[in-house]
Amino acid sequence: MGMLDGIRVLDFTMNAAGPAAGALMSDYGADVIKIERPVVGDECRNFPPIVDGNSLCQCWFNRGKASVTVDLTDPEGTEFIKRLIPDTNIIIESYRPGVMKRFGLDYETVCSIRPDIIYVSVSAFGQKGPYSTRPGYDLIAQAMSGVMSITGEAGGPPMKSGLTLGDLFGGMNAFASAMTALYHWKATGVGQHVDISLVHGLIWMNGSVERCNVGQCAKRQGNHHPTLSPYGLFNGKNGQSIIIAAVNKKIWESLCDVMGRPELKHDPKFEVLNNRNENQQELIGYIEAWLGQYDDINVPLKLLEQAGVPSCKVYDNNDVFSDPHYRGNNWLVKAPVMPGITSMDTFVARGPNAGFSREPGTFRRAAALGEHNYEVMERYGFPKEEIDRLQAKWAKK
Amino acid sequence: MGMLDGIRVLDFTMNAAGPAAGALMSDYGADVIKIERPVVGDECRNFPPIVDGNSLCQCWFNRGKASVTVDLTDPEGTEFIKRLIPDTNIIIESYRPGVMKRFGLDYETVCSIRPDIIYVSVSAFGQKGPYSTRPGYDLIAQAMSGVMSITGEAGGPPMKSGLTLGDLFGGMNAFASAMTALYHWKATGVGQHVDISLVHGLIWMNGSVERCNVGQCAKRQGNHHPTLSPYGLFNGKNGQSIIIAAVNKKIWESLCDVMGRPELKHDPKFEVLNNRNENQQELIGYIEAWLGQYDDINVPLKLLEQAGVPSCKVYDNNDVFSDPHYRGNNWLVKAPVMPGITSMDTFVARGPNAGFSREPGTFRRAAALGEHNYEVMERYGFPKEEIDRLQAKWAKK
Repeated sequence: MGMLDGIRVLDFTMNAAGPAAGALMSDYGADVIKIERPVVGDECRNFPPIVDGNSLCQCWFNRGKASVTVDLTDPEGTEFIKRLIPDTNIIIESYRPGVMKRFGLDYETVCSIRPDIIYVSVSAFGQKGPYSTRPGYDLIAQAMSGVMSITGEAGGPPMKSGLTLGDLFGGMNAFASAMTALYHWKATGVGQHVDISLVHGLIWMNGSVERCNVGQCAKRQGNHHPTLSPYGLFNGKNGQSIIIAAVNKKIWESLCDVMGRPELKHDPKFEVLNNRNENQQELIGYIEAWLGQYDDINVPLKLLEQAGVPSCKVYDNNDVFSDPHYRGNNWLVKAPVMPGITSMDTFVARGPNAGFSREPGTFRRAAALGEHNYEVMERYGFPKEEIDRLQAKWAKK
Repeated sequence: MGMLDGIRVLDFTMNAAGPAAGALMSDYGADVIKIERPVVGDECRNFPPIVDGNSLCQCWFNRGKASVTVDLTDPEGTEFIKRLIPDTNIIIESYRPGVMKRFGLDYETVCSIRPDIIYVSVSAFGQKGPYSTRPGYDLIAQAMSGVMSITGEAGGPPMKSGLTLGDLFGGMNAFASAMTALYHWKATGVGQHVDISLVHGLIWMNGSVERCNVGQCAKRQGNHHPTLSPYGLFNGKNGQSIIIAAVNKKIWESLCDVMGRPELKHDPKFEVLNNRNENQQELIGYIEAWLGQYDDINVPLKLLEQAGVPSCKVYDNNDVFSDPHYRGNNWLVKAPVMPGITSMDTFVARGPNAGFSREPGTFRRAAALGEHNYEVMERYGFPKEEIDRLQAKWAKK
């Protein structure tokens, strides 16, 4: 059943960061119940691509979770939740700070029912401090972590990542922190409140901030390295690009030979690393002129590989999607779709985040909205008529 | 002592990804012994910035670890390691696949000494498959995960992140996976081999790959949103930029009022979201013209905040470094430097990755190379003369 067999999770999250954390717990066998807003559910149910009226995106973010619709603004809704808490090991929530308290489901209240709960709050700016109630979007996390300021061309504007970086790193961070707390709970019986911030997560990855200690404010510098040349992205024909990483003299000299430019090895402009850094633009020009001779960039790439020059193609998503190494390692798996998607039985999706020799993760299908209302509410003593009454009441708002 | 009190880790990693994982374990109280190459040590000891001849970067990546120098190519070196293994819960290593086997310290061999070990291997392309022995750099992980292809201006080349994204995400992923396996070990007594790949990690974050299921290959599209306008980065004077996220009609209309352009609300080019998406470039022009009136971008930002328009400044690293919210939440902490740095007692560094109400993480100082040779080797029964002999022998190679 997986490493988290027997662990019960209540997932009050939405959009991307929180759901990703709960989905990871599900991969490893936790019993995750997602509490969703009646009628509309998690916003990510509307994220593209949409197939047969259902989101493939939600098929990933809410994989392996049961779905129960509950109106948390109704005391009858929170009373139901409170019946689940004694059986729950981990709560994840991603409301704006203060909202769970308004529902009567804040950490302190939940603790009075189950003192050893692990309660993970995911927000943009954290639970405390002057910015804590500010609206948070992935883009704001990218901007306020300094990450955009160090990404992009030197002469151009700051650049966002094409990833929803704040959300996905935040989800992994929430998962990592929950697992650390879970180990500690297993060892000591003690739970706690875990405060995860998307902005904080990206700052944690931004090591260049520490250069401010010596008076340096790192700036964006495009696709090349300030103190290593040639090392970066080089453009060929028809929008094709490759990476070349000539990390030492021997590799640099092999590159000169592959390009048919052995004279560059002894050119005083390029012979020593410092020279190559000083004349980086000229050197980039030579390399791109060489690449520009080939219609298919795989041809020079092959030559580089044969010469032992670290290099690779810059993959687009189709390259990623079809790569046999990635499929063979289960980085991309054939995964089940959610109910309601009828034009495909499976889709190719990102599989578990890591390989485990004994207890590999499993991608289980996402649920339709409210699919588990009866199963879960009956398990906690609600008769069918009562479930019908509550769901009808909650659906009206 | 922290959540991982009593957990012993042997850290055979170098550079960034692996060291970050071990450092996280140290934050939470694990006893981490870093095994380093004699004389030179971990490469990250040379990463800038350098202060008093020592790397501030290594002060972060190897915080809280003991340092012991061992020549793993010498059977006397691996014999010493094998004495430590019975006491070790977690091994992390980041050699190219196959190298630990050459040392006689692969998972199977270690398992024969301690069957319940958790053994985390961090590499560029994973332990299995056709690419597993390829050289791996952060830039190659960014390129081969598709992440660069979706980052950058629509008309420009693919763009790398200013973060060493593959390394830092890989480090967090390794930590998360080790903690999941550690919980499982505590619950069942079973260990396992964990396979972490930097390329895989970035693919795991690249959700747009799943659009290939419906025949869409996502492309880079700069700083704006294809189906939400205005939502993105807007440039003002003197290289200052802000984010505006007008996620609904009400916010869009507030933005028009703040700009003193109420007529745009009813302009057929901008009234409905679809119109705004179609005329996005024109709209961006209006917003940037408005911003361009202000020498200090904080002035229009204040107006946006007062009107409830989600927005923020695009921080540079100095902004991050000095932000009171970040300092107050311990996202940046005054941290101890390593021995040998004499011109400062502390530096401002990224603190633990998350807030824990009962067992917060602690940033402990990094060690000088080989600082714990005597302490650790004596603990495992080596007399002083024997340690001197081995270290002298290992220093010669």
